[in-house]
Amino acid sequence: MADPKILQTFPNPQPGRDYVIEHTHHEFTSLCPITGHPDFATITVRYVADRVCVELKSLKQYFHAYRNEGIFFEAVTNRICDDLGARLRPRRLAIISDWKARGGFTSVITAEWTPKAKQRR
Amino acid sequence: MADPKILQTFPNPQPGRDYVIEHTHHEFTSLCPITGHPDFATITVRYVADRVCVELKSLKQYFHAYRNEGIFFEAVTNRICDDLGARLRPRRLAIISDWKARGGFTSVITAEWTPKAKQRR
Amino acid sequence: MADPKILQTFPNPQPGRDYVIEHTHHEFTSLCPITGHPDFATITVRYVADRVCVELKSLKQYFHAYRNEGIFFEAVTNRICDDLGARLRPRRLAIISDWKARGGFTSVITAEWTPKAKQRR
Amino acid sequence: MADPKILQTFPNPQPGRDYVIEHTHHEFTSLCPITGHPDFATITVRYVADRVCVELKSLKQYFHAYRNEGIFFEAVTNRICDDLGARLRPRRLAIISDWKARGGFTSVITAEWTPKAKQRR
Amino acid sequence: MADPKILQTFPNPQPGRDYVIEHTHHEFTSLCPITGHPDFATITVRYVADRVCVELKSLKQYFHAYRNEGIFFEAVTNRICDDLGARLRPRRLAIISDWKARGGFTSVITAEWTPKAKQRR
Amino acid sequence: MADPKILQTFPNPQPGRDYVIEHTHHEFTSLCPITGHPDFATITVRYVADRVCVELKSLKQYFHAYRNEGIFFEAVTNRICDDLGARLRPRRLAIISDWKARGGFTSVITAEWTPKAKQRR
Amino acid sequence: MADPKILQTFPNPQPGRDYVIEHTHHEFTSLCPITGHPDFATITVRYVADRVCVELKSLKQYFHAYRNEGIFFEAVTNRICDDLGARLRPRRLAIISDWKARGGFTSVITAEWTPKAKQRR
Amino acid sequence: MADPKILQTFPNPQPGRDYVIEHTHHEFTSLCPITGHPDFATITVRYVADRVCVELKSLKQYFHAYRNEGIFFEAVTNRICDDLGARLRPRRLAIISDWKARGGFTSVITAEWTPKAKQRR
Amino acid sequence: MADPKILQTFPNPQPGRDYVIEHTHHEFTSLCPITGHPDFATITVRYVADRVCVELKSLKQYFHAYRNEGIFFEAVTNRICDDLGARLRPRRLAIISDWKARGGFTSVITAEWTPKAKQRR
Amino acid sequence: MADPKILQTFPNPQPGRDYVIEHTHHEFTSLCPITGHPDFATITVRYVADRVCVELKSLKQYFHAYRNEGIFFEAVTNRICDDLGARLRPRRLAIISDWKARGGFTSVITAEWTPKAKQRR
Repeated sequence: MADPKILQTFPNPQPGRDYVIEHTHHEFTSLCPITGHPDFATITVRYVADRVCVELKSLKQYFHAYRNEGIFFEAVTNRICDDLGARLRPRRLAIISDWKARGGFTSVITAEWTPKAKQRR
Repeated sequence: MADPKILQTFPNPQPGRDYVIEHTHHEFTSLCPITGHPDFATITVRYVADRVCVELKSLKQYFHAYRNEGIFFEAVTNRICDDLGARLRPRRLAIISDWKARGGFTSVITAEWTPKAKQRR
Repeated sequence: MADPKILQTFPNPQPGRDYVIEHTHHEFTSLCPITGHPDFATITVRYVADRVCVELKSLKQYFHAYRNEGIFFEAVTNRICDDLGARLRPRRLAIISDWKARGGFTSVITAEWTPKAKQRR
Repeated sequence: MADPKILQTFPNPQPGRDYVIEHTHHEFTSLCPITGHPDFATITVRYVADRVCVELKSLKQYFHAYRNEGIFFEAVTNRICDDLGARLRPRRLAIISDWKARGGFTSVITAEWTPKAKQRR
Repeated sequence: MADPKILQTFPNPQPGRDYVIEHTHHEFTSLCPITGHPDFATITVRYVADRVCVELKSLKQYFHAYRNEGIFFEAVTNRICDDLGARLRPRRLAIISDWKARGGFTSVITAEWTPKAKQRR
Repeated sequence: MADPKILQTFPNPQPGRDYVIEHTHHEFTSLCPITGHPDFATITVRYVADRVCVELKSLKQYFHAYRNEGIFFEAVTNRICDDLGARLRPRRLAIISDWKARGGFTSVITAEWTPKAKQRR
Repeated sequence: MADPKILQTFPNPQPGRDYVIEHTHHEFTSLCPITGHPDFATITVRYVADRVCVELKSLKQYFHAYRNEGIFFEAVTNRICDDLGARLRPRRLAIISDWKARGGFTSVITAEWTPKAKQRR
Repeated sequence: MADPKILQTFPNPQPGRDYVIEHTHHEFTSLCPITGHPDFATITVRYVADRVCVELKSLKQYFHAYRNEGIFFEAVTNRICDDLGARLRPRRLAIISDWKARGGFTSVITAEWTPKAKQRR
Repeated sequence: MADPKILQTFPNPQPGRDYVIEHTHHEFTSLCPITGHPDFATITVRYVADRVCVELKSLKQYFHAYRNEGIFFEAVTNRICDDLGARLRPRRLAIISDWKARGGFTSVITAEWTPKAKQRR
Repeated sequence: MADPKILQTFPNPQPGRDYVIEHTHHEFTSLCPITGHPDFATITVRYVADRVCVELKSLKQYFHAYRNEGIFFEAVTNRICDDLGARLRPRRLAIISDWKARGGFTSVITAEWTPKAKQRR
């Protein structure tokens, strides 16, 4: 399993300002937990940093760790959201996973994390 | 007629979070009920799951069941909306059907389902 | 003049739900009332049906009836809006006409119809 | 200087409705007031007419009158906004000028006019 | 370091109106502070001028001064925001930096400046 | 099986000139002979007519007859080529089938027909 | 019927050089001779002039004369080719008509004219 | 190592005709033999079959077998070319690999196979 | 009239090699000699230099000199071809002018220059 | 000056086959030798290797060495061609440099290298 401890951070250079950082990884791949077939996605991490920012190279390594994992679209999106939320404690965070065609379908999953876990909006 | 019982579900992996799942089927085809000519559409299912998520392969089979059905654009969009609403009981649900050119026209039908059927907004 | 009586309707298959129907005609053509030169447009009809929906083939015939009419962009857009509003009595209705390049210009006219004619918003 | 008297109008065919008219001129050119080099832009006029609409051929002539004028991006956009506002007295009006690449830059200037000149929003 | 004194201004030609000026520089390049590899970005400056506008040629020179600087995406975006805010004292200002692919990632950083520095929104 | 007798012809209006006619059908669908899953393709018929041209509506009906046939990409392309060659006896003929994504693959099959069947070129 | 006498010419400004002139008309429309439905095409005239060039405004008027003609794709393309060949006596000439979607098909017809009518190539 | 024995074949349905089959795989991924970083490519197999055609599902499995192989762009392209040439003994064969951006570069490698290995063209 | 003496040259840095230089000007504008309306084109100069190359800034000034000239598409293309041929004496030269939409038409004129003026090919 | 000794090579994995390798660098930048302004280009290296292939990371470093060089489009393209020809001694080699807009112009320079320097083709 991809280990969130891979994720490195550095101090937010401008903590006095709420500004938006968006990193989009175009080369995410994991495996279907049923068939073992590879899945491909573009994953966007959009957040407002509080004390720390995520270091880009470690984020890449964290994503690469899913390469041979069998995991569903819905589960992996929520797990990335939970891992980055726990590691960065950001002011705001959203994860958007956009999956390439599989059986005539494309899929997009969008999950948001908030400092205080809201059970229901 | 496409039978909603084809639709399989699996437990929502993160029911504590309202997150958006969007599946777009690029290969929907049915027949015009008047002329028998084939119609082609892209159908998007966008929802916030409550207890269950729809299983993608069964959703594909449900859509394929319309292949030789004669049905109007407006009717099929509402029927998919009703079937998925009844089967998933989601927190939110929208169906968008986008139809290829027919006689110089393209058409888009957008229907939303809500837990308590609102008669009029 | 294009006669709104050409427009056929059929009963709304789901009157209990406010859903959006959008038909886009890509082959509208009329004539400039000054020069007689042909104009070309894409016309979008976006509405929420009440009791009836417009039948697509009759809508096409209604649009074709403008082929040899001399009429301004602003006038034809409002007239289509008035004709469809009167015929369908929809819950909401918008007409968008998008005109191809003429003398280095493109033009878009957007008119909305409401059940009770609002004189000024 | 481009003379706003060039601008011709015709009566609004549907003054009882607030509808949006948008004309986009793809062939605007003026000169840089410093270097004399030609500048190229797409100019959009978006408005809700009150009593009169602008006649398209005269709008083209008005724009052509800038061909050999030396004027800054910011100034020409505001001047077109002032001239059309004064001539049409519309319910709403916006001018958007979109300038082609100059020294590695593209620029977009957006100005709005309102019936009562608001000094500050 | 890029010196904000390079930035030249000229008087706002229409200070009575709040209008939006947007300059997009397509040729920004700096260096990665860790590896020394070149980074490439498109930088957009979007603002509502108060008393002065930024002169485009000086803005280009200011951006060129980063060519051989080693600086992080987050830091350079905030610094441009601070420099332009201090120099122009605009009514509103946003800086958007859009970075080309690096290791399978693209990134977008968006920072806003306000007349009174808001510590937290 | 799609019956080539469906294909109607009309006399070539200009048999004294070798000119190229190309019809592209964007809505071809058949079934995978192994899995029964629907396949979707764009089929192009490019030919130089001799005595007769193919009538477009009958060509559409001929293609629609494959809707519920189980047949491989390579086989259907060659069969369309053989059927049209036999029916039209054209001076030249090529069939190009371009298949939508299936399991991460797209496919294009191109077959040419010549008046005298060349065994090997 | 569109009368080739509408076509005006002017002397070739550089008859000592074989250079290629290509005019593409984006607004051609005629009628289907069977159903009366409008057809839409882009028509390209590509030629090497000998003594005369075709005047663009008259070419437009010649094309407009087909607006209410019922004529097949193959026939109209050959007729335009014949008319322009007879009128211009060019060194080389090709007509390409590219027809918008009709019943799921797009079509392209390409005819070439040569100074000495070749019966068969 | 990806084993060419995975590749299944079926009899060419039309061996009397030289026709072109092109399969493009959009989801190829292998590893850099130096850094272990994932590489992504689109691989096209274009061939004229002799006695047998390649079965698409087995071709997919053959490509998937490279997922965790460390191999250079040039080497993998030639190896796929050799494996498919040996297995299919086609009349003609070309392999085109198109690699996604890596360090600011994209790469395309094109190799052709011929029945009798030509040492030098 | 645009004076070819504006054109500056510099020595070809590699006269021992036949290599292709292509400059495309995206901002050409002249006037219609009949109506005085502005025309807009993209002009490409493609050549193999012999002793000298054209200096880019002077080429821009030469093109700008047509801004207020009334001249036909065919004539201006041939004149640019003659002027550059005479000034550069290149090994090969082609001028391609691509004109924006005018009355529903776009036009492309392509002229080639050769060291020894060929009267007819 | 960029030193061709930076270029590293590795043995051609398939010297018995003439296959095409194409590397495109999307991030080339150098300086104008007159004004000192930065220029930006995409550089393509297309070659058929003989004994050695160029190592991609060293090619990147070789291109980066031009970052602060003042050099003309024509000169830099020929120099890259000469350096790579001398270092790789390939069977065929072409360099294509595609320069971003500068003063309304884009430029493309294409140079080919051959084992025996042909003085004139």
